[in-house]
Amino acid sequence: MKKEFAKRVKVTKRSFVREILNVAKDKSVISFAGGLPDSSLFPLEMIAKEIENTIKKGSDILQYSDAQGLKELRVELAKQYTKTKAKNILITSGSQQALDILCKAFIDKNDTIITESPTYLAALNLFREYGASIKSIDIEKGVQIKKLEKIFKSKRVKFFYTIPTFQNPTGYSWSKKEREKVAKLAKKYNILIIEDTPYNSLKYEGKQESGFDKLLPHHSITLGTFSKVLAPDFRIGWIRADEKFIQIFQTLKENSDLQSSKFFQYVALGLIKNKTLSKHTQTLQKEYRKKRDYMVEALKENFKDNIEFKIPKGGMFIWVKFKGSDTMRLFKQAINNKVAFVPAKVFYPKKKISSYARLNFTNSTFDEIKNGIKKLKDAYVRSKVIS
Amino acid sequence: MKKEFAKRVKVTKRSFVREILNVAKDKSVISFAGGLPDSSLFPLEMIAKEIENTIKKGSDILQYSDAQGLKELRVELAKQYTKTKAKNILITSGSQQALDILCKAFIDKNDTIITESPTYLAALNLFREYGASIKSIDIEKGVQIKKLEKIFKSKRVKFFYTIPTFQNPTGYSWSKKEREKVAKLAKKYNILIIEDTPYNSLKYEGKQESGFDKLLPHHSITLGTFSKVLAPDFRIGWIRADEKFIQIFQTLKENSDLQSSKFFQYVALGLIKNKTLSKHTQTLQKEYRKKRDYMVEALKENFKDNIEFKIPKGGMFIWVKFKGSDTMRLFKQAINNKVAFVPAKVFYPKKKISSYARLNFTNSTFDEIKNGIKKLKDAYVRSKVIS
Repeated sequence: MKKEFAKRVKVTKRSFVREILNVAKDKSVISFAGGLPDSSLFPLEMIAKEIENTIKKGSDILQYSDAQGLKELRVELAKQYTKTKAKNILITSGSQQALDILCKAFIDKNDTIITESPTYLAALNLFREYGASIKSIDIEKGVQIKKLEKIFKSKRVKFFYTIPTFQNPTGYSWSKKEREKVAKLAKKYNILIIEDTPYNSLKYEGKQESGFDKLLPHHSITLGTFSKVLAPDFRIGWIRADEKFIQIFQTLKENSDLQSSKFFQYVALGLIKNKTLSKHTQTLQKEYRKKRDYMVEALKENFKDNIEFKIPKGGMFIWVKFKGSDTMRLFKQAINNKVAFVPAKVFYPKKKISSYARLNFTNSTFDEIKNGIKKLKDAYVRSKVIS
Repeated sequence: MKKEFAKRVKVTKRSFVREILNVAKDKSVISFAGGLPDSSLFPLEMIAKEIENTIKKGSDILQYSDAQGLKELRVELAKQYTKTKAKNILITSGSQQALDILCKAFIDKNDTIITESPTYLAALNLFREYGASIKSIDIEKGVQIKKLEKIFKSKRVKFFYTIPTFQNPTGYSWSKKEREKVAKLAKKYNILIIEDTPYNSLKYEGKQESGFDKLLPHHSITLGTFSKVLAPDFRIGWIRADEKFIQIFQTLKENSDLQSSKFFQYVALGLIKNKTLSKHTQTLQKEYRKKRDYMVEALKENFKDNIEFKIPKGGMFIWVKFKGSDTMRLFKQAINNKVAFVPAKVFYPKKKISSYARLNFTNSTFDEIKNGIKKLKDAYVRSKVIS
């Protein structure tokens, strides 16, 4: 590549994350690194049946189609939100594309946005690509509301991006009070809230608090996806927003990739209509809960007082503090010992040394959890001895 | 939507184009407007069979997968290019996403890019979204090479976007001499050429000239897609480029939508391996050629000396000059008369009154072509009487 060709692209260096994921692909490594659902639980038979039904609809199913997405699917998706109709929904190629569309719509270089700290890595990478100035509030000891108001006051904020339910990476869920307070502040300071909800259905206990679609319908945008509850490869997510936003987003969606697969939109619709989605969600809740509990026990048994963590009430991750450890160093030992996780460092908008790590419990078998946590314990001991 | 929320998004107003496409959806209107393949020709049986084979591969096929795309598919795609390997290919969600990735990589606001005039509308909309300053060269009387060199000399050009084979909307194909001259100039002035090739396989006669992958491998990037030769809904396209470009593009692809559907990548791979793609391409060449000839005859018969056009040697469109007519006005009469096309105006980087129109011949039946061209003739006569 000639140097003259490329502008200085603000491409985030993801070499370390790539390394983690490449390591995780090595079959001899037990990986708690990715945020992957358990593919052995995919409702493959029902999906296969629905795929068969869909192809029977004939050739037109494979023709170009509407950028906004299949009307019948949007009708179904709208039902889960307060005062929402099909016109308030835009289908996207996964919720990653929804984030990209939001960046296209809102972020000019150096614009201020707010995230939680730590937060979803691929969102951070995207915001950095657009040159956003990222402010953040801690959520590890609850939502830092005072700091949030301070930023709301002092900056022209484009939006506040949050995953308030079973957050990635911490597993934290905002309390009712926190949601209400932030909704009030957002209204007062005219701040747009982007609520990402990939894990909402993966609830293992407790009460689900209201989303911002209910608390703050016009000041918030909701992102949803089938990737965690059906299958990632459908590449079907959606945006809920005011109709005028949806119209802008639709044009940006068209410019991005014309449309998402109508075929998989029909498959998803069929799986909603024949109750596969709701039944499968119950299966996931049951099975992932077991895995979570199993990992919790393994952690307690192996690490005793050497770690701290809260048991997440849903989602895919346990956020573990390894006392006295820099998890970047621990990671290297762990890889030598054939077990992988993601060190906390990469999830912070401002990177820092951290003793936290994200462990995924949904994608491993019970045996892998048992053996992997044991290996991790050995790595931890060794890293302490060495350091 | 609160005004304060939205930055002034440079969203191109596409209301007129939306109008055309909405009108075209009305079943009582015969539409030569869209750039749609004939869905009745899709190799549905073979696709259904390959879909069945693919789902039999098991659950992992629906799990998250590589952003760069399926290796086996990239190996197959690489074969059609000079000195190209799998590492030089990135799978994209259609070639529209490929264009978006190129914009992300190269275009800062006010950067100069070059296009043909007229050119692909959705590319223009995208370039405008990124705030590019669009320079253009006419191609209606052959490639304006002197003007191109003048722009190469005077501006810092990010890239030159071209569809040199069976162009959209004109159907024009660059001669061997034109390709060689432009390749030489691009090398001399260090200009990057983006060669979009959606129609290359839809060749009805004549010799296919070399692509820029051969003439100028390191100074060019090639875009390809299955949308025209298999089915648009697969949402599978690709980029061929230097490996260092591909690495940057892959990160941007990940930020955009993580990955394209592995499922449809396997389906496409299967259809290449079992020769469905090559056989189906022959079918398309035969059938679309018939439709082209049928439309050519209908145009000659109805319009006699009132129109001018060159018979395109491939692709999907006939570019027709309606003498003494402003095709924006003609369009309104045509719609009243229940026939649609796209007036030339929207395809020019600098919009201008034009007597040209783009007629698609692939998506209509023979009867529709016959009746539609007749209706268009009536509209033409009426527009002359009225104006």
